[in-house]
Amino acid sequence: MANSASSARRAPVPVERCGAARALDVIGDRWTLLILREAFYGVTRFDDMRADMGIPRSVLTQRLARLVEHGLLTRVPYRDEGARARSGYALTAQGRALAPVILALMRWGDAHLAPDGPALAVTDRAGRPLKVALVAGDTPEVALRDVVLTPLV
Amino acid sequence: MANSASSARRAPVPVERCGAARALDVIGDRWTLLILREAFYGVTRFDDMRADMGIPRSVLTQRLARLVEHGLLTRVPYRDEGARARSGYALTAQGRALAPVILALMRWGDAHLAPDGPALAVTDRAGRPLKVALVAGDTPEVALRDVVLTPLV
Repeated sequence: MANSASSARRAPVPVERCGAARALDVIGDRWTLLILREAFYGVTRFDDMRADMGIPRSVLTQRLARLVEHGLLTRVPYRDEGARARSGYALTAQGRALAPVILALMRWGDAHLAPDGPALAVTDRAGRPLKVALVAGDTPEVALRDVVLTPLV
Repeated sequence: MANSASSARRAPVPVERCGAARALDVIGDRWTLLILREAFYGVTRFDDMRADMGIPRSVLTQRLARLVEHGLLTRVPYRDEGARARSGYALTAQGRALAPVILALMRWGDAHLAPDGPALAVTDRAGRPLKVALVAGDTPEVALRDVVLTPLV
């Protein structure tokens, strides 16, 4: 996948046919990816996401609606005692399938942008380390429900 | 990593300590990720990237400078016959380490947003399929130099 700068070269597939580019049309902005990060952490409530992310209310509303529209999040009703019913947000199967993207971002950020070390350990339920990596196609995959994130701070 | 919408919950680490969030501060916009996609395809020249992506010249200039500043791309001089010397752009080791992010995006986009099927096959040099996936921490990883992308169109 490398190339010398001295030879002209174009992408092997046009951007409109590329899976990565199509993915970026749906999730390719920082707020959207941070919302998905919250969802992977199990944060479901608008106000909790807003407090975690410091995102403007109108932006969060718009991005959540877009993620629901694209089928990555689904609305889940909840009601606190004495309060009116509200909507939380949970990942759909299609949204959960983005876990490798979020965890690959985390691994890269931890390796290259965290002089103070990673903030989270990613393990299975037995405490064995996991990673997102480029591997042979027949390698067994770990299901997201078996992933445990442990704060290291 | 799941949670019921009926219980309040915050992210296990604050956003400023999270590797994924730090990564998104550097690469969390659609154009930047599309530029990295070009770089993984071995496209090194400004004009080729611009033609592939349909990106405005000023935006490409700004994003490339930022990727160089953050150490993900490096300038590589080249000179076409009879023309002046110019700069191409190639991935650094830190930039190449983002391959799992791009390939995870591609896999997800191909699975969920490509009714006409994937545009590229991702294999090793022997033609064996590869994938980016969540796996045990001791799984052997495939080096980027051994990856072959074959257009399926």
